Amino acid sequence: MNKIEHIGIAVKDLDASNRLFSKLLGKPHYKIEEVASEGVNTSFFQVGENKIELLEATKPDSPIAKFIEKKGEGIHHIAFDVTDIHAEIARLKDEGFIVLNEIPKKGADNKLVAFLHPKSTNGVLIELCQEIKE
Amino acid sequence: MNKIEHIGIAVKDLDASNRLFSKLLGKPHYKIEEVASEGVNTSFFQVGENKIELLEATKPDSPIAKFIEKKGEGIHHIAFDVTDIHAEIARLKDEGFIVLNEIPKKGADNKLVAFLHPKSTNGVLIELCQEIKE
Repeated sequence: MNKIEHIGIAVKDLDASNRLFSKLLGKPHYKIEEVASEGVNTSFFQVGENKIELLEATKPDSPIAKFIEKKGEGIHHIAFDVTDIHAEIARLKDEGFIVLNEIPKKGADNKLVAFLHPKSTNGVLIELCQEIKE
Repeated sequence: MNKIEHIGIAVKDLDASNRLFSKLLGKPHYKIEEVASEGVNTSFFQVGENKIELLEATKPDSPIAKFIEKKGEGIHHIAFDVTDIHAEIARLKDEGFIVLNEIPKKGADNKLVAFLHPKSTNGVLIELCQEIKE
């Protein structure tokens, strides 16, 4: 784990939350990106070496819609930057963590991503992400 | 807001979670600190420029005990490092955020801290913290 890459926050209304977080952080979001495969619209804010990723569902069966239905708006996951996602997945499986995506998938922001099940991580949904080099 | 200072995670058993997070992060915690006024034991891990703070309740009426009772273990708050906490409190009040501690209080890790109410911040409990200079 090199560093915390971003913190993902589930929101109901991306426009309203972009305004809210730009007041909170004192700076605007720098990017909006739709990830159609996940049913989400995302926006990104830079804070020091980390990003804050706001996530809005684009369809009712999106994981974000289900999360908000169950728990309300709030922090959804923490993503850690890793150098070799396949090696990290193997290491964490060996350590007893439940890896939800043994084959990493394409996420937002040009990343390969994989999630760990919160029941193996004290209730925290953990994402591993590795930047895709062109 | 200079940077994310730490992410606070509510846990039931600090010893077990210290072992879990040291496997996850590939390194041990570097400090344990009790904050008696808040009814918590804390431990800290360094990851890049951020810290992960695990929080275990030391008494039944601790905010962490109540949080776990209601929501289970998981991410409790995000803390932002600020240069002048009094100025940030005034700025955020003006912007319409609900500040829970208009007079900052002494938190863990030699910090002055103040919290924003999650209902004004998309369900995210936000902490402002400023290092106390001796």
